[in-house]
Amino acid sequence: MKVKNLVGERFKERPSDCVVDSHALMVRGGYIKQVANGIFSLFPPARRVTQKIEAIIREEMDRIDGQEVLFPVVLPGSLWMESGRYQSVDNTLARFDDRNGTPMVLGMTHEEAAVQLVREYGSTYNRYPFMIYQIQTKFRDEARPRAGLIRVREFTMKDGYSFHTSQEDLEKYYARCYRAYERIYARAGAPEVIAVKSDSGMMGGSVSHEYMLLTDIGEDSIVICPDCGYRANMEAAENIMAPADQPDEAAALEKVSTPGKATIEEVVEYLHGDSQHSVKAVVYQTNAEDKFVVAFLRGDLEVNETKLTNCLGENIHPAFVTEDSPVVAGFIGPVGISSEVKVVFDRSLENAVDMICGANDKDYHYTGLSMNRDVPGAQFVDIAKAFAGGICPVCGQPHLTVSRGIEVGNIFQLGIKYSKSMNMTYTDADGNSQYPIMGCYGIGVGRLAASIAEASHDKFGPIWPISIAPWSAEVCCLRADDPETKRISEELYEALEKAGVDTLYDDRDIRPGAMFSDADLLGAPVRVIVSPKNLANGEIEISTRDKSIQVKVPVAEALSKVKEIIRTLQDQIDQKVPESL
Amino acid sequence: MKVKNLVGERFKERPSDCVVDSHALMVRGGYIKQVANGIFSLFPPARRVTQKIEAIIREEMDRIDGQEVLFPVVLPGSLWMESGRYQSVDNTLARFDDRNGTPMVLGMTHEEAAVQLVREYGSTYNRYPFMIYQIQTKFRDEARPRAGLIRVREFTMKDGYSFHTSQEDLEKYYARCYRAYERIYARAGAPEVIAVKSDSGMMGGSVSHEYMLLTDIGEDSIVICPDCGYRANMEAAENIMAPADQPDEAAALEKVSTPGKATIEEVVEYLHGDSQHSVKAVVYQTNAEDKFVVAFLRGDLEVNETKLTNCLGENIHPAFVTEDSPVVAGFIGPVGISSEVKVVFDRSLENAVDMICGANDKDYHYTGLSMNRDVPGAQFVDIAKAFAGGICPVCGQPHLTVSRGIEVGNIFQLGIKYSKSMNMTYTDADGNSQYPIMGCYGIGVGRLAASIAEASHDKFGPIWPISIAPWSAEVCCLRADDPETKRISEELYEALEKAGVDTLYDDRDIRPGAMFSDADLLGAPVRVIVSPKNLANGEIEISTRDKSIQVKVPVAEALSKVKEIIRTLQDQIDQKVPESL
Repeated sequence: MKVKNLVGERFKERPSDCVVDSHALMVRGGYIKQVANGIFSLFPPARRVTQKIEAIIREEMDRIDGQEVLFPVVLPGSLWMESGRYQSVDNTLARFDDRNGTPMVLGMTHEEAAVQLVREYGSTYNRYPFMIYQIQTKFRDEARPRAGLIRVREFTMKDGYSFHTSQEDLEKYYARCYRAYERIYARAGAPEVIAVKSDSGMMGGSVSHEYMLLTDIGEDSIVICPDCGYRANMEAAENIMAPADQPDEAAALEKVSTPGKATIEEVVEYLHGDSQHSVKAVVYQTNAEDKFVVAFLRGDLEVNETKLTNCLGENIHPAFVTEDSPVVAGFIGPVGISSEVKVVFDRSLENAVDMICGANDKDYHYTGLSMNRDVPGAQFVDIAKAFAGGICPVCGQPHLTVSRGIEVGNIFQLGIKYSKSMNMTYTDADGNSQYPIMGCYGIGVGRLAASIAEASHDKFGPIWPISIAPWSAEVCCLRADDPETKRISEELYEALEKAGVDTLYDDRDIRPGAMFSDADLLGAPVRVIVSPKNLANGEIEISTRDKSIQVKVPVAEALSKVKEIIRTLQDQIDQKVPESL
Repeated sequence: MKVKNLVGERFKERPSDCVVDSHALMVRGGYIKQVANGIFSLFPPARRVTQKIEAIIREEMDRIDGQEVLFPVVLPGSLWMESGRYQSVDNTLARFDDRNGTPMVLGMTHEEAAVQLVREYGSTYNRYPFMIYQIQTKFRDEARPRAGLIRVREFTMKDGYSFHTSQEDLEKYYARCYRAYERIYARAGAPEVIAVKSDSGMMGGSVSHEYMLLTDIGEDSIVICPDCGYRANMEAAENIMAPADQPDEAAALEKVSTPGKATIEEVVEYLHGDSQHSVKAVVYQTNAEDKFVVAFLRGDLEVNETKLTNCLGENIHPAFVTEDSPVVAGFIGPVGISSEVKVVFDRSLENAVDMICGANDKDYHYTGLSMNRDVPGAQFVDIAKAFAGGICPVCGQPHLTVSRGIEVGNIFQLGIKYSKSMNMTYTDADGNSQYPIMGCYGIGVGRLAASIAEASHDKFGPIWPISIAPWSAEVCCLRADDPETKRISEELYEALEKAGVDTLYDDRDIRPGAMFSDADLLGAPVRVIVSPKNLANGEIEISTRDKSIQVKVPVAEALSKVKEIIRTLQDQIDQKVPESL
């Protein structure tokens, strides 16, 4: 492909609406163009990257006996009513009526379609296990798309669904798929992708993992124990508390005036206490009935809303507190709180003594609160966020760290949620009817591409791993007006293409600086520079985009040198790919 | 792939809802499953066929300098408002509001998205010409989906868009693409695909061609001249009339009683005339205002509604005639018709004399109508359907034939319809602002697969061309319980896979008849039968799905024989592929 014919524009200025680097570079490099909020078209370079990623994914799915199918983008609402998700999923699920008034949805995930496809096939035990997958467009009407291809509304996804007759069999397959995912990220050259335990959310099921590409711009927080290797998404991370200090003599409960001191910081400072000896109250309302919910936890902790939601069993939103509300904003405490309010106590308050808390009275707090004495019968649950320096729930060491990451894939043990709700059964060896046990496995293709660009770039452009680079090599003809330079450039370009190296060729009559800027943005891992100056010495310059290699070789050796460097770069990737299971 | 693991069921009975053979066979063979009316999931065999077709299409598009991109499925309504199609296209265009109330549409074609993508890139003349294409899901909310994958609502389509700075350049590229399409059909092994001139319909533009796969179950009628090779879709076919006979003396106009004779046949019989000397009146109403339109043409001809619509410049529907209507159903004629009615005269009535026509009076007709004398000033246009035995508009020979076909692709010279309405301009060499001239080029992948199955099958299953067959070969182990038969089958299967032959392997312990039925449905072109009986002679049986080859070879030669047959089958296809332009 000649750069002069390549559709798409490249430019220098960082677009003002791009917050993260990968987004800016993919716009500047002519990879993507926004069509609507969170909806993008891909120019040829991005399409080439995603095709290479798709090919890797296909190979790995086929390797673990996946069979490629294709589900529709547009699904009948009735199918989602069967599973109950038509009703339970919020307006992230795009719904419309077709010309006959039949409710339709845009597939945001395809568990229902997978069950529908294999309901008859899977009617007898001896056809299990099996896994089907597709690579197809999904639409999720996200409230806040952001960061280019990292969080979008429409995206290409590989989603796979496995079906089993026992939990053991699911777990065995889950482990194979877990490994296949590790291989996919390694083969795509993604640096630092780790699997973490996650919350299953609307997918249902119990065990699930997310694959997180670690980068500071990630939306997710990941809790990691450097001692034992424990890893979990913040949403799912358990928070372990050291037992509360128990002073010899408990203070008495005393109501004190705290005029205008409505935040933990203000109260603690005013009363000369500390946040670990104060009770934080966070107020929510249920989505269904706007009923007030107060989460109480130690003053130095934060609420993990996912855990809180799971414990409540219903969705909540931050409360809108008015004078008519049954809580006194800024002065809420567990003693004497209105019976209209549902209260939830975090484990951090278990056995707590000598605490400061709101008195449910404007401008008043209590000191000396003892949970066991003053709030008898309170139940304690885990609703606080894990934190850096916190205690690992596996090994007990207090060295947890918190990193940021982008979720580039997830795998779920779904159990029988979908087979049961959609009444998919098989006859087992004893003639009994059973629900198959399902797993599901997703990877967003565009997000993976963008995440790799985010993790591997410099200020000049993406540094694509050789395995997914839009082109493996680029020939830069530095003086297209010089016949000899042009001839040798062209010969090399043709020889590379003939050798099966997907090559970009820049023979535009432009300044070297402009040519190199474009080459940096297009990110071919190997660059071949043909210039009159080097040719005078009978040489051609070859370098890598990551600057690890820069050599001059005789013209006659250029082709084999490029092939050798490509092999080396590919070998470096292959070495990191774990064995498949 | 082992048949025993292949997801999908195969069965004997023709499903009662399948009207065409390809649909029945693709359901019976476990290729497709309906999810909603006109919406299907693809099982692995169908996905394999479509992937092979997609690969052929990609190669041919790349060969004519197409660059693959990806447009969104979900597009903002505002983009379609720019082109005017948001308003002009009927409810075949699926529309919905996103969570913010923004109107969105599901892409049924992507001219708007193509212009949006390259509007900036195409701002200067020296970047032209270029062509971008995608292979992506489309949704068209068709009123009457039918025939399995042949007419669906959701489908995978390759759609390409070219941009030019002159009509000559477009025509040159159009010719290259025309040839690329011929190559695609030939490479996919589609028998008898012909290009015909077509009506451009809602796409706009003037010159367009459809590629028709000839088959009796086709929805389209194609007019063909066996003398000169003229071909056109019935919708676009010109109808040429021989000059009307001119008797020496014209009869006088006479009003005659024709009680209850409201059809051409009845009137002609009653008055002892013939249909060629009668005037047929067909009544429509405009969609916009329900205004009445009467099309007059010779009694033996039919109205071509596409040509009539084009000539009126607005959409029409068959009239709903009541007592209050300005026409007298069954007795409508050109003399004395209400001025409220718009009349259109077909060319077949030009200079016509001695005709029977309605008298616009219940139970009365005229005889002796002379168009020039009795309907002075009438304008004659071409609104009649061409017919078998009609006159070729190119060579003038009266040997037209009418065949049926399935449209498996189309190419359009769009002109500046989209660039102008969406204000995409470039600066030409003289510094003037110009609208680029566009072409567009579509192929439905699933429809092509189904059409080939329709054109090439027997009652046992599809006879896939080797180039798109889900598997090239199948090894049938006829006695899985016999260790020697099993061992040799397995070795052969593994040797074929290792040799790069995508092979299906059936080692189920079932009767040969059942195994062959499945093999017929899955349609691998080469079948390898390993049985104790043949092994006793040291032989293996190899045959082709189309029954053209059936041989027994020594076990040691089986692998090379299969490879040889596959090469032969591929050669037979390759020989029919025209050179690219």
